[in-house]
Amino acid sequence: MAEIKSFKVMDILEKANEMEDIIHLEIGEPDFDTPIEIKNEGIRAIKEEKIGYTHSMGKKELREAIAMYYNKKYGTNLKYKNVVVSAGTSPALLLAVYTAMEFSGKNEILVSNPGYACYPNFIKFLNGKVSYYELSSEDGFSINIEKIKEKITDRTAAILINSPGNPTGVVLKKKDYMELAELGITIISDEIYQGLVYEGKQYDTILNYTVNAIALNGFSKLFAMTGWRLGYLIIPDRYIMLTQKLEQNLFISANTISQYAAIEALTNENVDKQINNMVKEYNKRRLFALAEIKKWGLKVAANPLGAYYIIIDVREYTNNSLIFAYKTLEKARVAVTPGIDFGTNLEGFIRISYAVSIENLEEGIKRLGEYLQNEKKIGKETRR
Amino acid sequence: MAEIKSFKVMDILEKANEMEDIIHLEIGEPDFDTPIEIKNEGIRAIKEEKIGYTHSMGKKELREAIAMYYNKKYGTNLKYKNVVVSAGTSPALLLAVYTAMEFSGKNEILVSNPGYACYPNFIKFLNGKVSYYELSSEDGFSINIEKIKEKITDRTAAILINSPGNPTGVVLKKKDYMELAELGITIISDEIYQGLVYEGKQYDTILNYTVNAIALNGFSKLFAMTGWRLGYLIIPDRYIMLTQKLEQNLFISANTISQYAAIEALTNENVDKQINNMVKEYNKRRLFALAEIKKWGLKVAANPLGAYYIIIDVREYTNNSLIFAYKTLEKARVAVTPGIDFGTNLEGFIRISYAVSIENLEEGIKRLGEYLQNEKKIGKETRR
Repeated sequence: MAEIKSFKVMDILEKANEMEDIIHLEIGEPDFDTPIEIKNEGIRAIKEEKIGYTHSMGKKELREAIAMYYNKKYGTNLKYKNVVVSAGTSPALLLAVYTAMEFSGKNEILVSNPGYACYPNFIKFLNGKVSYYELSSEDGFSINIEKIKEKITDRTAAILINSPGNPTGVVLKKKDYMELAELGITIISDEIYQGLVYEGKQYDTILNYTVNAIALNGFSKLFAMTGWRLGYLIIPDRYIMLTQKLEQNLFISANTISQYAAIEALTNENVDKQINNMVKEYNKRRLFALAEIKKWGLKVAANPLGAYYIIIDVREYTNNSLIFAYKTLEKARVAVTPGIDFGTNLEGFIRISYAVSIENLEEGIKRLGEYLQNEKKIGKETRR
Repeated sequence: MAEIKSFKVMDILEKANEMEDIIHLEIGEPDFDTPIEIKNEGIRAIKEEKIGYTHSMGKKELREAIAMYYNKKYGTNLKYKNVVVSAGTSPALLLAVYTAMEFSGKNEILVSNPGYACYPNFIKFLNGKVSYYELSSEDGFSINIEKIKEKITDRTAAILINSPGNPTGVVLKKKDYMELAELGITIISDEIYQGLVYEGKQYDTILNYTVNAIALNGFSKLFAMTGWRLGYLIIPDRYIMLTQKLEQNLFISANTISQYAAIEALTNENVDKQINNMVKEYNKRRLFALAEIKKWGLKVAANPLGAYYIIIDVREYTNNSLIFAYKTLEKARVAVTPGIDFGTNLEGFIRISYAVSIENLEEGIKRLGEYLQNEKKIGKETRR
């Protein structure tokens, strides 16, 4: 029971919310509003449509729109029948882990250390075994296929990947995908930050490299639709029947209003333009944040090409990122996420988010920088 | 894998939807529209609120509104901190089953035969063991505490109850609740059809009889909000921390638009009036259907005091309710749910729903009645 861990960032967030004059760089949520065309379609649906249950796999029009969107943006060749709509990417992951274990008859899932804090808890919830593959600071937290290979056993059901990665912002390269595909093991690919890529290919998917994969995605990040709670899985043919049964039984169907809105998100050209503008704005913030971090003499520990996160190495100040995060909150009045939330390999690091305004980024990094310069001075004085 | 069963009614529904001139009595969904005040609040939220993640347990205002609603309608004394909002009653059940197993350290869940077809699948999904307690036609499918007692073992984690019951419409009495509470075993009480009770106490909950219980409820049925996908659990104090972790990890939070709408559903007096009118209308249909069923010489097998279902005994025509349902669909052009969907004890019975218009009820029961009179005649001729 004690095994299911809560995010430490949640506790920090709660504490931060009780305080005044805090700069929030711990945020995992777009600060943009949902584009107006998507909102209007949600409103239209409430007014004009019967908001009843949909097909358990999702409205056919939405499943088709998702398949077409992937085919256009990612260069895949999907059919709608392989798309399963769910109440967010999280329940989609629950089904992905379950089906991967069922079809392999095995129960070990490989997840990265560091990685998204919830991944291990999905696996534990389903009585699976979590096995970690290492991403190391020496490699800039990018995937090292040899370190994955050495963790594969005859109990390995699937390998979970996430590109762009939370918390590192690292983006998988073609070579990484090809090497992963060659392993011959089911890949569960969390693609929720795809599209938020600022150098190189903007959209890529494991589905371009192997059919032995489950892709997960959703509308929360790219379309700024977190509260609409809509995601999806893309599954191989042989998974369809079981996944449909699970959707029927465990969830009945996803939110109908959000399904209408999501069709608009994928098909409206004005939405597409706004998404492009958001991506440009994120990139502007990213470059700004990187320059500010450098200015204050702080160390970026991974190449942040995607999502909206930057990892900062604070090992010269602390070996306990949780205490460090509480201290920066109290003393520097800036909220950051402790690296330990994402795994032992990120102890001594913090994550900041640039899903905030340029002004807040500037002020937040300044507060962090000044605080650490002061700490260094105190450190030196103490050592005297 | 083969253990996770799909509803057979879904297959019938799909077939029925491809056919023309079918009367649908297999429906499990209110035919009423969501009240306009609830819709308007959903629209207002889209327009005026940031539709971001909420607290993982749900918006505090909604949790408070749910607690107050229970306290007012059911006579409980709940606090908001025991209320957990979820994306429908189904994911709420997933958490209820998981936490009941975790806190007891046991893995057997007792479910009724017959009962809602999905219950066993939630338990199997979580690697629990399903154990059935019998509801028999001799008892009119009401709870018989002795038949529950004989199924309790030292591995029993919880007993799952459902009142008003799907598929039977049977409503638990005070005596039933008291006997269940005295067993000293955690009760998971699915209260999704509460309020849809046409004789006796309109609202009752296991929480009036024991603190060792998890109540499940939602907005789909009573408020005609199926497509809004919003439900909740009411849990004992000691479950709060684990349940919050699970919500955070597995679902992040429930749909934000629906949460705003749900507050309106619980607090708007005009909504309350409309709900009362819907309940009156359901009761009118219920009494009408019972009279029609009698007129055609068909046998009602359980006392349908709640929900919107009636069980009809067709054992003199068939011992295979699935084949029977397909036959009535093809020959009488009326869709019904085969009893076997709900368990072996309902083999030889069918379920019809009165969540349809009086006109359709009349026509549907007439088609069924004529078909069966004809079948009887054929049967007699064959026996000659």
